[in-house]
Amino acid sequence: MTLPAPLAGVVPPVCTPLTPDREVDVPSLIRLVDHLVAGGVHGLFVLGSSSEAAYLTDRHRKLVVDTVVAHVAGQLPVLAGAIDMTTPRVLDHVRYVTEAGADAVVVTAPFYTGTHPAEIDRHFRLIASRSPAPVFAYDLPQSVHSKLGAELVLELAADGVLAGLKDSSGDAGGFRAVVMGARTRPAVSGFSVLTGSELVVDTALAMGADGAVPGLGNVDPEGYVRLYRLCREGDWEGARAEQERLCALFEMVRVGDPGRMGGSSSALGAFKAALRLRGVIDCSVTAEPQVPLSPDEVERVGKYLAGAGLL
Amino acid sequence: MTLPAPLAGVVPPVCTPLTPDREVDVPSLIRLVDHLVAGGVHGLFVLGSSSEAAYLTDRHRKLVVDTVVAHVAGQLPVLAGAIDMTTPRVLDHVRYVTEAGADAVVVTAPFYTGTHPAEIDRHFRLIASRSPAPVFAYDLPQSVHSKLGAELVLELAADGVLAGLKDSSGDAGGFRAVVMGARTRPAVSGFSVLTGSELVVDTALAMGADGAVPGLGNVDPEGYVRLYRLCREGDWEGARAEQERLCALFEMVRVGDPGRMGGSSSALGAFKAALRLRGVIDCSVTAEPQVPLSPDEVERVGKYLAGAGLL
Amino acid sequence: MTLPAPLAGVVPPVCTPLTPDREVDVPSLIRLVDHLVAGGVHGLFVLGSSSEAAYLTDRHRKLVVDTVVAHVAGQLPVLAGAIDMTTPRVLDHVRYVTEAGADAVVVTAPFYTGTHPAEIDRHFRLIASRSPAPVFAYDLPQSVHSKLGAELVLELAADGVLAGLKDSSGDAGGFRAVVMGARTRPAVSGFSVLTGSELVVDTALAMGADGAVPGLGNVDPEGYVRLYRLCREGDWEGARAEQERLCALFEMVRVGDPGRMGGSSSALGAFKAALRLRGVIDCSVTAEPQVPLSPDEVERVGKYLAGAGLL
Amino acid sequence: MTLPAPLAGVVPPVCTPLTPDREVDVPSLIRLVDHLVAGGVHGLFVLGSSSEAAYLTDRHRKLVVDTVVAHVAGQLPVLAGAIDMTTPRVLDHVRYVTEAGADAVVVTAPFYTGTHPAEIDRHFRLIASRSPAPVFAYDLPQSVHSKLGAELVLELAADGVLAGLKDSSGDAGGFRAVVMGARTRPAVSGFSVLTGSELVVDTALAMGADGAVPGLGNVDPEGYVRLYRLCREGDWEGARAEQERLCALFEMVRVGDPGRMGGSSSALGAFKAALRLRGVIDCSVTAEPQVPLSPDEVERVGKYLAGAGLL
Repeated sequence: MTLPAPLAGVVPPVCTPLTPDREVDVPSLIRLVDHLVAGGVHGLFVLGSSSEAAYLTDRHRKLVVDTVVAHVAGQLPVLAGAIDMTTPRVLDHVRYVTEAGADAVVVTAPFYTGTHPAEIDRHFRLIASRSPAPVFAYDLPQSVHSKLGAELVLELAADGVLAGLKDSSGDAGGFRAVVMGARTRPAVSGFSVLTGSELVVDTALAMGADGAVPGLGNVDPEGYVRLYRLCREGDWEGARAEQERLCALFEMVRVGDPGRMGGSSSALGAFKAALRLRGVIDCSVTAEPQVPLSPDEVERVGKYLAGAGLL
Repeated sequence: MTLPAPLAGVVPPVCTPLTPDREVDVPSLIRLVDHLVAGGVHGLFVLGSSSEAAYLTDRHRKLVVDTVVAHVAGQLPVLAGAIDMTTPRVLDHVRYVTEAGADAVVVTAPFYTGTHPAEIDRHFRLIASRSPAPVFAYDLPQSVHSKLGAELVLELAADGVLAGLKDSSGDAGGFRAVVMGARTRPAVSGFSVLTGSELVVDTALAMGADGAVPGLGNVDPEGYVRLYRLCREGDWEGARAEQERLCALFEMVRVGDPGRMGGSSSALGAFKAALRLRGVIDCSVTAEPQVPLSPDEVERVGKYLAGAGLL
Repeated sequence: MTLPAPLAGVVPPVCTPLTPDREVDVPSLIRLVDHLVAGGVHGLFVLGSSSEAAYLTDRHRKLVVDTVVAHVAGQLPVLAGAIDMTTPRVLDHVRYVTEAGADAVVVTAPFYTGTHPAEIDRHFRLIASRSPAPVFAYDLPQSVHSKLGAELVLELAADGVLAGLKDSSGDAGGFRAVVMGARTRPAVSGFSVLTGSELVVDTALAMGADGAVPGLGNVDPEGYVRLYRLCREGDWEGARAEQERLCALFEMVRVGDPGRMGGSSSALGAFKAALRLRGVIDCSVTAEPQVPLSPDEVERVGKYLAGAGLL
Repeated sequence: MTLPAPLAGVVPPVCTPLTPDREVDVPSLIRLVDHLVAGGVHGLFVLGSSSEAAYLTDRHRKLVVDTVVAHVAGQLPVLAGAIDMTTPRVLDHVRYVTEAGADAVVVTAPFYTGTHPAEIDRHFRLIASRSPAPVFAYDLPQSVHSKLGAELVLELAADGVLAGLKDSSGDAGGFRAVVMGARTRPAVSGFSVLTGSELVVDTALAMGADGAVPGLGNVDPEGYVRLYRLCREGDWEGARAEQERLCALFEMVRVGDPGRMGGSSSALGAFKAALRLRGVIDCSVTAEPQVPLSPDEVERVGKYLAGAGLL
């Protein structure tokens, strides 16, 4: 399908259900996609951080993007992460996800290597020049250890290199600068600015953002879709109440004992446990070397679901 | 071949020569290996950071390891990096480098993802349990943003998980703790402690380290082999003089203008320019998105070579 | 005066005008206070980061707080920073600012030293137990290199240790957690949550924050007061327009050449240049070792003022 | 006294004994100085990080420097830290420590504020131009969050701004560059290069450093003096054995439970506990908000002392 310009709405990063022996669980993945589509989301983002892309082999990644694109069959746009260290490796991922039919690719700054601003600029320009699909920049400094500045993003947008931004940096001031620039600079029209922060979707939309890519949207797609509609209707009181309900639900990401596991094990473990408890996926195992939640911790996930009226 | 335990001596991380269109330049790679072997090195480390592993596609990586292992043909041990974000992806690299015949694999802590100490521990244990070849830990906090503590390394060594450590952390105190532990704990016998810091090989060996993995060893393998011998003979005055000559030569890594490029573009660009100037490889291009050295900057590389008696 | 609970509204961090030989310029300081009071602000915060507190000697700091408290004479609350590395040193500052009559003290986590969460907790409890005035926590990770977690802040609030938070962390999600906690936990009633981010005052207030501490409020206090009123009236469209005007004005912080100076030299230099151009203060010199703006850079500050209708 | 150029040998950073109510314990401080002088040290460094300077009020700091300078009475050089955030505040400390008779001042890069290289350069030049005593740079990135580059240090040395460097950065390569520069550049003659790393004094001296500033030297001054002599005599085997004994002793810094306290509470708590157990000081309390060691943890300090033959 042709990607809307700008892409707008709720575009959840799709979790990747695994079997107990850590293969991609295709039936569960399809049910998850159905659950999201039924929830009213406006697009899907596969192979992002919440999808455990960093933990998936190329074989797994191909299976995921093939499965989702085929199943969605053009009903709504599918963005695919091409997450890797540098330009040549990213381009390998761009190749197979676009061959599978992804409507856009999502790319971070280089990581592991040193990353000079001039090299980041060059990275995105090289990828865009060789990608058959539009390129979204993925700003994720906690993972890649460099920040995409608003000026760089807007320049790349104006030059037609980038079609959008998924901003998971948590830097509200920088995000706003991109939103303002995208609205006021003629060359940037059609550029999509999406927040990746689950907790501030209402205020991001109030600033003028186009949409959100909330990991928690796996668990409660209806909630984020409702929140998006309330914002679009200008019902800011209602939006705030819905956002706060989702903030309370988001607290599930902290169920994992920080003495035993890192934040990713806890958050992705909680999302998957919630999806299993809601009957969407069969197994909540996360990829290695993540540490599994204990039964007690899973029970607390259930309480968050109950508290949010989702069980 | 069977890996010596501990592996000792000079084990340069082999640069990856590229053609002008950024394919692996196999004839140059073979000449580089010959140059290193003729220089007297004790092993080779392919697909490490100085090899631009982060910039090489899987196809490139396979070609490199296949070429080098076949060409070396058991004359000396070949270690191969399996550099990727997480356990499952690392294991994919472990598979093809060991199938190619690498004598050991070299693995960092997870990166891009959050990395809890328990997850790092689990990562190495899982990899070792599934790798047909011994595993070396690669401590490189500037790339992976977590430090391998001496206690963790020694525990993994004692449990037979790790066969050695390549320490590029620059943390001399932590390095010494591993060296002392490797000598005094009976369960750790045969564990190889290698420094990746070009500038302190003499003092690392004085502490009791087994060897070095110096990127600059591509340019001047004879120098590092001479340095190693002087240390082994206890000629610390001579060792210091040789080390200081190499320190002066190492300054070439700073020829690149920091306003135009990052440290990796500058350092790897300088090593490759030096190899070309010395007639070892045909082309000094680095992988994308690295920025090339200017002709002036390359000329300065030549002056460093001349100053060290290498031109 | 008695501090309102919660303190609400616009509480600018008052710049510290200096003479050309870098003494506190008392007449300019008094004119600046009058300018802010005339602008309708709801409180003043002296000796914060925008006040160059880190650059002021104790003698300078005392002169500032004495001057401002005496001149304000109870018309509106005066908060005073007690910025130093550790508990005993902070308490020395607490002593003289409260003797001068400051209505509250503003305190960061320890810095320079290692800072364990338990030590941060202990730091605030010790200070509150010995301070005659209420204590506000100042969350400024870019300066102190540790983040005050929402849970810690709310716990200290519930225990009566903290009267408020000035959050300059830029972390919108964590900020929102404090705002939500302050509204829903009975023990935290009266706790004041203030944003220190100039660029997101509208959305912070939309979340339920009590007010803002904008450095740019020195330059355009009327603008921030207008913004505050629009938010309080629920005119979110108007608020957004006003906020965006202020965002555009805020761009002045980047006039300084990053090759010649750091962000503080540029931003504080711009604020002071703007205050001089607006005729509020006599001299725009900043404290040492900050680098002064060039005449060209100052001219660009003037253009920002003109663009915002302030010249 | 006139400071030797270069200052060489063992110059321990003198711990600051406190009374149970956290006043400076002058009799204990004098006994500690006597203990160090009797141990053969070549100079004293008061008001450094191991002295808890960051935790001492100005009144405490003055009492320390007055007490030590008066008691030492010119027998050996006394360096004094002037640890504060920025130039004007550092200069206030410079004033009283030089009035007290300190033979040199020790100054870090600015902290808390943004720190551009040009501002760091300016900071040291301003301080040196106004200090009546020679200035040593204190490289401590873990506290001040910027690194003093070798080129900057050597330039400041060549310009007569700096008399020496205390390097606690742990960066062995950068340290070596300063050592080499100090020996080979004529304008830098007399510049003193001291390592602050307890664990690599032998290798620092082997590189050509002038001496060491070991916090652990409070506990075992004889050990470090012996180590220094062995290095000066070229007995590198003996030096390594002594250094390793001190490395094992240094492990005491890790007795504190990392779940309950930070590294500073643990390390300074251990040094002070060791000094009390050895009968040098009366009370091992550390300054607030540091967390005290438990009786069990103190007992383990005693075991380290016993193991090193110091009890």
